[in-house]
Amino acid sequence: MISAHVSPQGTKPAIEEGLLLMPKFDANGLITAVAVDARTKDILMVAHMNAEALEKTIATGQAWYWSRSRGMLWLKGETSGQIQTIEEIRVDCDQDCLLLLVTVAGDGGCCHTGRQQCFYRRIDGVSDEGAIRLAFV
Amino acid sequence: MISAHVSPQGTKPAIEEGLLLMPKFDANGLITAVAVDARTKDILMVAHMNAEALEKTIATGQAWYWSRSRGMLWLKGETSGQIQTIEEIRVDCDQDCLLLLVTVAGDGGCCHTGRQQCFYRRIDGVSDEGAIRLAFV
Repeated sequence: MISAHVSPQGTKPAIEEGLLLMPKFDANGLITAVAVDARTKDILMVAHMNAEALEKTIATGQAWYWSRSRGMLWLKGETSGQIQTIEEIRVDCDQDCLLLLVTVAGDGGCCHTGRQQCFYRRIDGVSDEGAIRLAFV
Repeated sequence: MISAHVSPQGTKPAIEEGLLLMPKFDANGLITAVAVDARTKDILMVAHMNAEALEKTIATGQAWYWSRSRGMLWLKGETSGQIQTIEEIRVDCDQDCLLLLVTVAGDGGCCHTGRQQCFYRRIDGVSDEGAIRLAFV
């Protein structure tokens, strides 16, 4: 069996209009990945992948990320049960960002704080001193 | 009038559970921003803001970004008419990503390729040689 592998970056037309995945990893070898609930379209989390995480995600159909804090590959949900099964992966115009449409196992959540989604606060205003205040959504 | 300004990063509890915006900018002074259509929940684009872009976005109610390719502040839609009016800004648990719920003016699009959204291709399979193929969605 041949393993999937990402292609090197090509010309601008190949990147923007081509039909080969040639992701633009940043200086740390990472690409941003936005995980979205395939059914509700809620944005669950934003994390990062290196080439190996992306290849493992494609090979297994489950979302693997690179943990910047722990410096290791990370199967999302391995301990929490919140495995993200991939329904579809999209890439943006300049191929420096991925969009994962996922179905979440376990309790359906994703955030390490225990909340269902990571975006649980919104900007709510500015204090008299100019500090930007948040509120829980 | 006092201008809004972001607060410096605080303790982990302050970042994760607090009610002050204290964004974690990366080594280049940037934070990732995901722009979502407030009505359809479609993900339009992913871009970056520095502190000034974020403060201008909050002050004006229109999305400003930092263009990494041009090295300058950028009012999205200034030339295309695709101005993004901010309906809500959310921040994630560790405050290193923003979610913008926007209403887009002009033709409602956002991508410089002329498409309505930047995520117009999906991973479609793997070639015999292991290259990851894309298809238009």
